Amino acid sequence: MPEIRWDIITEERVIIATERSRRPHDFKHADAPAEPKPDFVANCPFCVGNEAMTPPEVDAFREPATEPNAPGWHVRVVPNKFPALAPEGDLNPRSLGIYTLSDGVGVHEVIIETPRHNETPVVASAQQWLAVIRMYQRRLQVLSQDARLKTVLIFRNEGKAAGASLEHPHTQLVGLTFVSPVLQRHIEGVQRYRSRYGRHPFEAILEQELREGTRVVRQTERFLLYAPFASRVPYELAILPLSPVARFERLPDEAIQEFAALLQDALRRLHAVLNDPPYNYMLFTAPVGYDAEFWLHLRIVPRLSIDAGFELGSGVGINITAPEDAARYLREASGTIPTP
Amino acid sequence: MPEIRWDIITEERVIIATERSRRPHDFKHADAPAEPKPDFVANCPFCVGNEAMTPPEVDAFREPATEPNAPGWHVRVVPNKFPALAPEGDLNPRSLGIYTLSDGVGVHEVIIETPRHNETPVVASAQQWLAVIRMYQRRLQVLSQDARLKTVLIFRNEGKAAGASLEHPHTQLVGLTFVSPVLQRHIEGVQRYRSRYGRHPFEAILEQELREGTRVVRQTERFLLYAPFASRVPYELAILPLSPVARFERLPDEAIQEFAALLQDALRRLHAVLNDPPYNYMLFTAPVGYDAEFWLHLRIVPRLSIDAGFELGSGVGINITAPEDAARYLREASGTIPTP
Repeated sequence: MPEIRWDIITEERVIIATERSRRPHDFKHADAPAEPKPDFVANCPFCVGNEAMTPPEVDAFREPATEPNAPGWHVRVVPNKFPALAPEGDLNPRSLGIYTLSDGVGVHEVIIETPRHNETPVVASAQQWLAVIRMYQRRLQVLSQDARLKTVLIFRNEGKAAGASLEHPHTQLVGLTFVSPVLQRHIEGVQRYRSRYGRHPFEAILEQELREGTRVVRQTERFLLYAPFASRVPYELAILPLSPVARFERLPDEAIQEFAALLQDALRRLHAVLNDPPYNYMLFTAPVGYDAEFWLHLRIVPRLSIDAGFELGSGVGINITAPEDAARYLREASGTIPTP
Repeated sequence: MPEIRWDIITEERVIIATERSRRPHDFKHADAPAEPKPDFVANCPFCVGNEAMTPPEVDAFREPATEPNAPGWHVRVVPNKFPALAPEGDLNPRSLGIYTLSDGVGVHEVIIETPRHNETPVVASAQQWLAVIRMYQRRLQVLSQDARLKTVLIFRNEGKAAGASLEHPHTQLVGLTFVSPVLQRHIEGVQRYRSRYGRHPFEAILEQELREGTRVVRQTERFLLYAPFASRVPYELAILPLSPVARFERLPDEAIQEFAALLQDALRRLHAVLNDPPYNYMLFTAPVGYDAEFWLHLRIVPRLSIDAGFELGSGVGINITAPEDAARYLREASGTIPTP
């Protein structure tokens, strides 16, 4: 018998239909590893030496005495060459009869994670990956000074089925002039839960997950990696700090180090269990004005199936792998570095 | 300069970023027509003669004196062989600590649109396609008697990129024991708009769209086919009755005939302009208890791009084709039958 599970924050429902279930190695995806990738690709705009192929960099971690837009960098940040939003200008909100619109002002950056074309997060050194996560934090700190931005979303697309158009390892960042609908619904859900039960829903979730253990993949000193009870898709994962922190830019560096290592471990476990799956992850940090209710978290969404008319038309996910099974497979997997 | 547009019902935002725009023939998709398909496939469970390969039929339009689960049908309805929800049983709602769940009870049917494997909606005769739409109405009438169901969603997936797993033309129907989150948000938006402006948002939309004309593809006596102002994806379309009707099962047969012809015309125009694109469409009819605020409509969503981390993490769509441009291309296209 399938189950319908409620998300306690958004109150949305997910159908857990394990009659259709498959073991992890039965998930087929188009992005499965082909031949090994080279560490340099001549026409890749993100490879070292090709710095002139991108817009001028806005930030970088570099070797001492190297110049911007030249080799010597470890992590490099550039504006998106085809930005969805324009960096300059005012919102200029206006009406068009009954409709409302504004100019598409915002920030769209690319965080190039490594000079090496084939250094994906699962094979990167701990030091290199830590530099990526430190750059996430630094960009959030810098952009928190831009008074126009209300939401800054950091996200990563891995594989064509997850919407990645360039292969070279990179993360994107979009700054929006409004609170995104996803965060709006999340915050309303947190407020609703709090007014009913007198505490933050993540506090309740942590208490139950740590007690039950069936959906826990790994616990560290400050974070929990787990498969959410109402996971919308197979092998969905979340990373949650064990105590409330609203903004990623406020984490002390020891917490950043622990977070970086846990995220890399999570991606390695998914790589091992699902054979290098396409995925997205999204880092949710407090939008402006909501520090009181926000508890930062990261969500990892493997892209093993396609949302069809049912999901688009209902908003209900159909998940063929129970989160408890996903967590068990991922606990049993080692988070070791895959052989190239 | 990109634009940010508001949906006046859900208040969600869409980025219209036409700097990235392409002309319609530049949209590439994996589902572009290959060689012509045969009209019969021996191992297709939906082809005529293969009736034993499906669960026993629950409804059909058939030739007189033919038997259920045998040839002689024009449109045939069977339970989904791999249903997401179980047809029998009670909800049995329960708690698991802080979480809530219930048994996955509901209805999941397949409407086989034709005995012929290659008779897609764009090549079907008007009579055959009308039978499909009449069957939509008949199933909604039958299932409105099932007191467990609060939402019945009819949807069609065309092409692999739209989540279709079987090629033979078919539509699906899912009956849910709750109001779906998509309808819940829509209804809340309608209530909010009405309390602010004193009328249904679709009344306001129709007035403005008919006056402006730039987003109209075609108007018939009772319906409007148009590209919504805040279209989330390129070439998104909607069909809206010109005066309010809550439930599809209440449309008189003349309106059903007009609706069937207009939907077929819309699909033919998309086929002509976008070269047989993958798409989903969803028919939204009033969930139980909301006849007063509901205005039935159909939404067509071509699947020309993949939602990536930005869309998943923000809930904001990035649309690279202005609805006004999409409507113009579709107005200029003929809705004639493609040559096979």
